[in-house]
Amino acid sequence: MNRNKTAFLFDLDGTLIDSVYQHVLAWKSSLDEEGIPLSVWRIHRKIGMSGGLFTNILLRETGFDSTPERLERLRFRHAETYKALSAGVRPLPGARELLDYLTAQGTPWAIATSGRMETAEHNLAALGVDPTIVPVVTRDQVKYAKPDPDLFITAAARLGVDIRDSLVLGDSIWDMIAAQRARALGVGLLSGGYGEEELARAGAFRVYADPADLLNHIDEVAARI
Amino acid sequence: MNRNKTAFLFDLDGTLIDSVYQHVLAWKSSLDEEGIPLSVWRIHRKIGMSGGLFTNILLRETGFDSTPERLERLRFRHAETYKALSAGVRPLPGARELLDYLTAQGTPWAIATSGRMETAEHNLAALGVDPTIVPVVTRDQVKYAKPDPDLFITAAARLGVDIRDSLVLGDSIWDMIAAQRARALGVGLLSGGYGEEELARAGAFRVYADPADLLNHIDEVAARI
Repeated sequence: MNRNKTAFLFDLDGTLIDSVYQHVLAWKSSLDEEGIPLSVWRIHRKIGMSGGLFTNILLRETGFDSTPERLERLRFRHAETYKALSAGVRPLPGARELLDYLTAQGTPWAIATSGRMETAEHNLAALGVDPTIVPVVTRDQVKYAKPDPDLFITAAARLGVDIRDSLVLGDSIWDMIAAQRARALGVGLLSGGYGEEELARAGAFRVYADPADLLNHIDEVAARI
Repeated sequence: MNRNKTAFLFDLDGTLIDSVYQHVLAWKSSLDEEGIPLSVWRIHRKIGMSGGLFTNILLRETGFDSTPERLERLRFRHAETYKALSAGVRPLPGARELLDYLTAQGTPWAIATSGRMETAEHNLAALGVDPTIVPVVTRDQVKYAKPDPDLFITAAARLGVDIRDSLVLGDSIWDMIAAQRARALGVGLLSGGYGEEELARAGAFRVYADPADLLNHIDEVAARI
């Protein structure tokens, strides 16, 4: 990696925004309403994938048919319940400071999320991120979302950097797997509720607690002179 | 351990009942109302301790004063919000079958929870557990809750078994630490949302996905003829 060119490609939910547990319970409620029994922790461990892939996998594992109508109902009810639960959702500690630091250093950075722009907009505003200035790649803009590498590859292309000179910062094993498939280096954050070893096993070369902890140790992953 | 006497001492939330994530968000809401900013994953990793210890530790870590009035407000608001979120809370897969299996085999078992009887009652009913027949030790009945060993030691005493012949089944590292302090053997379950290695590092000698997975592999931990 060319350390003077290292770019930071961020996941959004659980990495910069403290929203994972609200998404988990919103999916739980949506699946319950559809009569699909699934333990909450199993939903948690699938979060971060594309919503379509996520529901397809859950339906396959539980033996329910994956019809377009069912997928649409699940998606709609998740969005409704998430809206009701998300009043208290805030940026994670250090998230704004980390992004400001990178901007001040002239380090290129972008956001790549499996969510859609509709739901991302509110979170970007809370982070003070203007998507007309910073590249923000959402699920709407690529054919395949995480754990496919397309979101991160597109984010690097938007920045005009080589994906092999990039770090992928994420809270879920799907981010780390997408990072490996993209030939980027994965950096894991515990702030989405995964354990440290789960992230390391999925390919994270370093794991930090949250954006504040990463900022405190930024020289470990992207020292520059 | 005398395998013909092996007793099973169960935690409740996250071990037999799928209620951890609802408790986590109820604490998040309670702390928010008190103006105490804390990331959700950090609350998740403290759940399973006694509520008093839990709030004390969180207050100390965030630098807020721990006054009796504040503790009471936090506890009250957690209980209120949990009630609103817990409509969909159900026993975990295999929980009832596992308890029925142990009863049919004549294996002694008990429940030891850091919660209070008030909140445990509804869950015991959902599990088909009659606390006048099965020993159920709650936070009300011991001076110190998990990670102190008192709850499990009291449960073993109620069954008339030696704690050193007992397994402690739990989903949190506090259960595993209490098990070690009690000189019981800890068995971890992933159904509370901890990672496998977190539980193993805290002393779990085996880790299973949930009660159904444990029942499928019951011979690994308590084979009898």
